[in-house]
Amino acid sequence: MIIKSGDIINLFHSPKEFILTTFSPEKKISTHLGVIDFSTIKEFGQKVYTHLGEKYYVLRPRISEISMNVKRTTTIVYPKDAGYILMHSSLSFPSEGFRVIEVGSGSGAYTTILALFVGPKGKVYSFERREEFLRNAKKNIEKYGLSDRVEFFLKDPSIDGFGVSDVDFIFIDVPEPWTLIKPAYESLKPGHTLAFLSPNIEQVQKGIKEMENTGFVHIRVYEILEREIMVREGKTRPVDRMVAHTAYLAFGSKVLEL
Amino acid sequence: MIIKSGDIINLFHSPKEFILTTFSPEKKISTHLGVIDFSTIKEFGQKVYTHLGEKYYVLRPRISEISMNVKRTTTIVYPKDAGYILMHSSLSFPSEGFRVIEVGSGSGAYTTILALFVGPKGKVYSFERREEFLRNAKKNIEKYGLSDRVEFFLKDPSIDGFGVSDVDFIFIDVPEPWTLIKPAYESLKPGHTLAFLSPNIEQVQKGIKEMENTGFVHIRVYEILEREIMVREGKTRPVDRMVAHTAYLAFGSKVLEL
Amino acid sequence: MIIKSGDIINLFHSPKEFILTTFSPEKKISTHLGVIDFSTIKEFGQKVYTHLGEKYYVLRPRISEISMNVKRTTTIVYPKDAGYILMHSSLSFPSEGFRVIEVGSGSGAYTTILALFVGPKGKVYSFERREEFLRNAKKNIEKYGLSDRVEFFLKDPSIDGFGVSDVDFIFIDVPEPWTLIKPAYESLKPGHTLAFLSPNIEQVQKGIKEMENTGFVHIRVYEILEREIMVREGKTRPVDRMVAHTAYLAFGSKVLEL
Amino acid sequence: MIIKSGDIINLFHSPKEFILTTFSPEKKISTHLGVIDFSTIKEFGQKVYTHLGEKYYVLRPRISEISMNVKRTTTIVYPKDAGYILMHSSLSFPSEGFRVIEVGSGSGAYTTILALFVGPKGKVYSFERREEFLRNAKKNIEKYGLSDRVEFFLKDPSIDGFGVSDVDFIFIDVPEPWTLIKPAYESLKPGHTLAFLSPNIEQVQKGIKEMENTGFVHIRVYEILEREIMVREGKTRPVDRMVAHTAYLAFGSKVLEL
Repeated sequence: MIIKSGDIINLFHSPKEFILTTFSPEKKISTHLGVIDFSTIKEFGQKVYTHLGEKYYVLRPRISEISMNVKRTTTIVYPKDAGYILMHSSLSFPSEGFRVIEVGSGSGAYTTILALFVGPKGKVYSFERREEFLRNAKKNIEKYGLSDRVEFFLKDPSIDGFGVSDVDFIFIDVPEPWTLIKPAYESLKPGHTLAFLSPNIEQVQKGIKEMENTGFVHIRVYEILEREIMVREGKTRPVDRMVAHTAYLAFGSKVLEL
Repeated sequence: MIIKSGDIINLFHSPKEFILTTFSPEKKISTHLGVIDFSTIKEFGQKVYTHLGEKYYVLRPRISEISMNVKRTTTIVYPKDAGYILMHSSLSFPSEGFRVIEVGSGSGAYTTILALFVGPKGKVYSFERREEFLRNAKKNIEKYGLSDRVEFFLKDPSIDGFGVSDVDFIFIDVPEPWTLIKPAYESLKPGHTLAFLSPNIEQVQKGIKEMENTGFVHIRVYEILEREIMVREGKTRPVDRMVAHTAYLAFGSKVLEL
Repeated sequence: MIIKSGDIINLFHSPKEFILTTFSPEKKISTHLGVIDFSTIKEFGQKVYTHLGEKYYVLRPRISEISMNVKRTTTIVYPKDAGYILMHSSLSFPSEGFRVIEVGSGSGAYTTILALFVGPKGKVYSFERREEFLRNAKKNIEKYGLSDRVEFFLKDPSIDGFGVSDVDFIFIDVPEPWTLIKPAYESLKPGHTLAFLSPNIEQVQKGIKEMENTGFVHIRVYEILEREIMVREGKTRPVDRMVAHTAYLAFGSKVLEL
Repeated sequence: MIIKSGDIINLFHSPKEFILTTFSPEKKISTHLGVIDFSTIKEFGQKVYTHLGEKYYVLRPRISEISMNVKRTTTIVYPKDAGYILMHSSLSFPSEGFRVIEVGSGSGAYTTILALFVGPKGKVYSFERREEFLRNAKKNIEKYGLSDRVEFFLKDPSIDGFGVSDVDFIFIDVPEPWTLIKPAYESLKPGHTLAFLSPNIEQVQKGIKEMENTGFVHIRVYEILEREIMVREGKTRPVDRMVAHTAYLAFGSKVLEL
């Protein structure tokens, strides 16, 4: 597994000391454990030492790390939620070349995951109304070499819709999801899934109500909790602090008439 | 969205009354709410009535439904875990044409998800040592039209390895995961991720220990909890019963030397 | 520990096969594992066999078992919640002879726990507006020999108050807790705690709002999850099903003015 | 509710700004919101202002606050666990004058709760082998005016037992609980409950095994999770961080023979 320029690598020292970065042989980066000279990095799985002798491993990033590691200007969709949303999407068949809508782009964390999932023949239409967020999300997607699969729009689709039709899945992550239910209904293939994510229960209540009124059925709401377990000889136990809540995840399927 | 013969559809009446089935216009199926005549089914999102007048919607299945709906001869990987495993896999880049190993095939629930995820250029090598399970898993994969992407092996790889090399990700779901850590190390690309799933903490402890001894780093163990929320006017609350535990999920990255 | 007539004993065969009952030496009870003759029961900790040879142990009941074992005509307060409510009550000092209000009595499950906690010098004023519930709750309290500590009222205190004043703690468990916040304020000692329990989030929202408007501060809402762990050689794990939700627990402290 | 010298009061500004202290009219305390002059404090439920005009309420402490507020030299038993342990204890009947053993004393947090619960006729025998911990626990109990109910022992009971017999309940909170199971068996009334608390699963496994071998039945292990809910107009949701794990709670009942 020779590493090529442009590959994303995870320089891993420990769960709290790691760097996700794009490889290029001339690069040198400074960590607070010392400087890493990239000219000595050749292949995945190897070790590399800082000039202070600290050991890092060169790993292929996990998807979760890629999405968590975007430069953040907003809250992001956590991996525990991101994977669950995919599993409850209608991106089941025909199973390639999916076209999906996402709004808002945020920092591009979930855009990244969607772009990976739809594959090279697929397309993610990502909408964002705040220009600085869009710019940052774009940069994150470029860094990961996924620009071909993502089309960004600087736009508030609650006003005159998405302008994209017959998509296979729509994901809404904005503070007022209920304003986008009708536009989403217009753009989504019948029988397919709309998902939205909201931290507050009142947002879920309003969003769900609008879905019921607009023509969605099979509406379900979930919350996902992730607990890390520390497995150490004689000291195995859950870690003592956890993220207790990120957001509620709501799903519904569009029907032609109720 | 005209429905074609061979399409998988979800005939949805309610969360507890639905049928996942392959479409064919001559088909008739009996539910305990009456008979559904498929000749009247034309497109996703439409309604169809049983001969007793009960309403069903024709929906595109969600991925979770596909995996939960395999004919089961074993316990299966739940969607909450399936999505999380993907998110923590090394299937991040180059992002198409992934080759992955899965052992055991079980009922093919997770095979289905991997097959969807690797896309038409990817390949899932699925190992199972019990013939009747393999036969059932194969049938499930065929039903979903994913056979081109899956190669099944009737084999216990703890004896002489997988016989497949340089794969992008390996997922182990067998009662004795520690017996497969060394074979997995042999077959996995350096820097890439091995995942295993076990219901009992002792299995995790033994598996993790073997990983540490074999050449894996960045080892993490998680547990995922899924809570459904009932959102009803004036009666919003979590549902009163939940699955409290399915399995622990363990992840590690192969390195060339420790 | 000689057992006396009137003592409550737990005849324990297994977590799913046990009987809580009042001891009397002439008693005989039929279980589906055979008949137990109480004349052979002498002391706590002993074994007793049914006429079919099945073994039972004679145990002192745990508080949780007493409260769970009331004859139920309503949903009851679960031990996980009951203990937590006590811990967040103002029943801290002077630490004996507490006077508390409970509404409604329900099946008397929580009444039992309050009666145990306030001790022989304390008093529980328990209000219930449905006569058949009150009758059942009373019977449960009598069975446990706690009648001296409990005064029951057949009454809806939302209409003209509790008619009891300067109590140390009030616990509300009715479908419309907000209707009792003002009466509770009238009857509670200043600086002391009011608690209410509701399954739905909308009930909590309305109750909390009324508390804020009435003169309560230090308002907190919690949810308690109980997970049983199965510890067996090589098979240690959480049990696979759990109660996901019983109710939200809300607490506030009365102040003289805001 | 006139406040007397020696009363414990909670000077409450906000959930993160409060002081638990013993009242005395001459006292003045400095908070970083200004100085509070106790001569103006007369009754529970009143307001008091710092010299900078910041408002505090004078509240009766909740039990949870008392136990959380001990001066800590060790980890303490959290209220979520403390209440649950009580509920699963055999302190059900006769319901006053209970005699209980606790080991170790730690910081006295749980000692406080036991002392409140057993009442003025009860007794807590609290064992601790580290002198500085014992001294601190004693001080905490004195501060709360509960010294009459607690007898402290500087002793390691794993060596030659507790020297106290026929107690109604025993609670073990030490790193090696299995070393105290046999001494506990000796000192506990037959049919009554032994509880122990351990953060690590291996401790639970060893403790449980020793209980099974020593003569305990009805053995159950639990874990309690506490989730705070933020109820605010339009922004109701669980708080975003929580304590994920404190300890496992194990319970068993002593029998005369298995």
